[in-house]
Amino acid sequence: MKLKVNDLDISTGGTLIAIMNSQDARQLDIRALDRIKITYMGRTETVIVNISETSKTVHSGEIGLVEEVLKSLNLRDRNIVKIALDRKPLSLGYIKKKLDGKELSKTEIEQIVWDIVHNKLSDIELTYFISACYTNAMSQRETILLTKAIASQGERLELKRYPIVDKHSIGGIPGNRTSMIIVPIIAAGGYAIPKTSSRSITSPAGTADTMEVLADVSFSIEKVRKIVSSVNGCLVWGGALNLAPADDKIIRVEKPLNIDAESQLIASIMAKKLSVNSTHILIDIPVGKNSKIERYRDATALKKRFEQIGRQLKRHVRVVITDGTQPIGNGIGPALEARDVLYVLSRHPKRPLDLERKSIMMAGDIFQMLGVKNGSMKALEILNSGMAYKKMKEIISLQNGNPDIMPEDIPVGRYKSEYRASKTGIIKSINNEAVSKIARIAGAPADKGAGIYLYKHVGDAVRSGEPIFTIYAENRDKLDYAVDISGEIAVLMVR
Amino acid sequence: MKLKVNDLDISTGGTLIAIMNSQDARQLDIRALDRIKITYMGRTETVIVNISETSKTVHSGEIGLVEEVLKSLNLRDRNIVKIALDRKPLSLGYIKKKLDGKELSKTEIEQIVWDIVHNKLSDIELTYFISACYTNAMSQRETILLTKAIASQGERLELKRYPIVDKHSIGGIPGNRTSMIIVPIIAAGGYAIPKTSSRSITSPAGTADTMEVLADVSFSIEKVRKIVSSVNGCLVWGGALNLAPADDKIIRVEKPLNIDAESQLIASIMAKKLSVNSTHILIDIPVGKNSKIERYRDATALKKRFEQIGRQLKRHVRVVITDGTQPIGNGIGPALEARDVLYVLSRHPKRPLDLERKSIMMAGDIFQMLGVKNGSMKALEILNSGMAYKKMKEIISLQNGNPDIMPEDIPVGRYKSEYRASKTGIIKSINNEAVSKIARIAGAPADKGAGIYLYKHVGDAVRSGEPIFTIYAENRDKLDYAVDISGEIAVLMVR
Repeated sequence: MKLKVNDLDISTGGTLIAIMNSQDARQLDIRALDRIKITYMGRTETVIVNISETSKTVHSGEIGLVEEVLKSLNLRDRNIVKIALDRKPLSLGYIKKKLDGKELSKTEIEQIVWDIVHNKLSDIELTYFISACYTNAMSQRETILLTKAIASQGERLELKRYPIVDKHSIGGIPGNRTSMIIVPIIAAGGYAIPKTSSRSITSPAGTADTMEVLADVSFSIEKVRKIVSSVNGCLVWGGALNLAPADDKIIRVEKPLNIDAESQLIASIMAKKLSVNSTHILIDIPVGKNSKIERYRDATALKKRFEQIGRQLKRHVRVVITDGTQPIGNGIGPALEARDVLYVLSRHPKRPLDLERKSIMMAGDIFQMLGVKNGSMKALEILNSGMAYKKMKEIISLQNGNPDIMPEDIPVGRYKSEYRASKTGIIKSINNEAVSKIARIAGAPADKGAGIYLYKHVGDAVRSGEPIFTIYAENRDKLDYAVDISGEIAVLMVR
Repeated sequence: MKLKVNDLDISTGGTLIAIMNSQDARQLDIRALDRIKITYMGRTETVIVNISETSKTVHSGEIGLVEEVLKSLNLRDRNIVKIALDRKPLSLGYIKKKLDGKELSKTEIEQIVWDIVHNKLSDIELTYFISACYTNAMSQRETILLTKAIASQGERLELKRYPIVDKHSIGGIPGNRTSMIIVPIIAAGGYAIPKTSSRSITSPAGTADTMEVLADVSFSIEKVRKIVSSVNGCLVWGGALNLAPADDKIIRVEKPLNIDAESQLIASIMAKKLSVNSTHILIDIPVGKNSKIERYRDATALKKRFEQIGRQLKRHVRVVITDGTQPIGNGIGPALEARDVLYVLSRHPKRPLDLERKSIMMAGDIFQMLGVKNGSMKALEILNSGMAYKKMKEIISLQNGNPDIMPEDIPVGRYKSEYRASKTGIIKSINNEAVSKIARIAGAPADKGAGIYLYKHVGDAVRSGEPIFTIYAENRDKLDYAVDISGEIAVLMVR
């Protein structure tokens, strides 16, 4: 059947979708969510069909296409394409198999990941897969196969060095910019640490967002290789490298129900480590209320699985379970966090000691994995000697930033609102979620200068009338809205 | 935040969706698949947000809305609406609970069904629910609660009679138009049988499609009440009555993986029976290769569950397991099936005996449930006496059809292609799926006259060159395409 392209002027963010008029669909016995093959100028793409019952959007004789399909086939409005009914992707049968509680083979897992990466599955189908892996947890064997499949569908960074160090935090804690301190320490210690980070999804800033305040973070694989060869470390955005393209698509479907299929979480992290050939990997699992992992025993179970997978993938994996009950550092939001990092590296009196302590501890763990005795002491020495700060300047410089920027030079939002304690006492708790929400409403991470600065942490004494935090925003409306919200949610509890 | 409506000119077929520009979304910290409340002229609707990263479709300051939202709020392009972030529906927590293997309460199941009926769940969320019910099968208690919740969300037919008879086939067998023979037999026997049927989803014809060849099938609840009060029976399309609106939405999500969560299947059928207050219900489970239930033991397990649920809902439920290995009747497709039905009712020599036999057996079972001894004999007598045919004419007449139509008067497709046996032997098997596919490609059910006529059934002798089936179509292209397909798939096997 030949149909005329109707550019729908819509982007799905991935999934390849066509809309057919019900009359045309009936003629080929095509039903909603069936697959069709679209052919144009010798190129073919398989897409999922939606059916338009009225002829309002897509008339008979036309086929409505989303941007993703137009791009893939290099099509324009009114081009004529050939279509034919196509088979369902093989992976649907494998997803059903997993849903029925059976174990998947290597080929089956590879096919599913291939179909995910190439946008061949509808939201419904991908959800069945995630759901299947959640209710019928993947075995160790399957998780490893999934890790390898995700890694093999992405790009690879080849450094030809040994060891290659990496670290990862499973996230959920505002602030917590340890990578930006650990990377210069380890690199200054002489080890390669090609750190790739994510941008924020639900937090006020990912490491990539914060590093971007100081330097560029989007580079090609080749450029990253050059930076690391030259200065041992980097702090770049993983998204630009396309190391594990299946990942974002999986996360999107997990979000509505906050599903975190453990095997997916592990595979997603470890796949990226495989892609950069890391040999020594430190994983940080923060535990606490309103953090990603709320119970200690869940953290220890996860720790055990990471260690097992590490052994089977022949990597040195160490897992630390850390305090996730409150934000780490004082600044929350890209610019405020970048200031904190520079304060720590430059040994400034205003440096947040919780962030420093955690970074030294973790850098020390890494040194110990590498055979250094008393690793924390070595980390502290590198920090105190100024070598870590010097290394950070080299990295900033190679990533096109200004190495000589001073913390106070980093602009923060000019609109601000200070909060004062209404009574005298001790800070009892700080709500991670509330802090994130306010910082995001204030504009973070898109507005780099937006966020919250915390003057107090849990256990600190406060006097009535003393400032406890300040909200920063880059425009008045956002500040007002953030202030509104902060009236509704308890950020700090004083007892 | 106030935004200008952008009519996207797209229908989702249910789900309420808005597209926001990423800039606006960021300002309210709204992320893809979050909920927003849209307010216009005092009316409010909660919808799911998709985010447009570019400003190509939806500019900053605009909100793109699908037809379903425009209709619900009576909106037009360029109206100004107020939006605010809304909570996630409560049912998401309950779906997660089910996914975690816990049993749901009455309130929780009611809330989920309410959200499904009111289009409050995204495809992803609804899929998690179906998936949860599939992997963590609903208990008997949950299935009953689900049945009642689905029924209570729909319309009700109040007949004020006792008993009220009903029958249902779980489907999957081409032909199989027993309802159109059983209803007149039971009604002629003096019992109320308000039969509602579905249209075809994947088959060449549903009972509603076939009945529509002879009469109207879309009526209001009130009109159905009048028809049944007057002649004891009816044969109408259930879809027009909105008895179980949650149903179609569930089925849509089950289709891509052919998931048939047993509890859903049972609840879907029994909810419709509750809605018409049936007291005596006969369920037909055909078993056979390429039918919905392929294994006998699955059929007996399902039979047991139907009987248990029937007891707990205080209804008389009888389940018959029947032969589902081949089509029932000779004609496949609305017009050809309608002819078969009239042949049986008018005791015509061309009547298909398999369809007649099955209908008499099932009508007999119903009579026996009602206390009649030797029910099949009574059914046969009513059929032979012409009383069933007379009753069918009364029903056709009240449903605005021509009661005096003769089978040969029913028009079938003028384009046809006959198939002849290539060797002499015995028919070994007939492929239900292949028969359905060809009839649909030929145009059924939309083209009433399209379909297949089978001259032979399994076990029949054929001689080489003898006609075995004819494909009918209403236009040449569809016939050609059906003939093409029939070359590729084995419809009949001769041994």
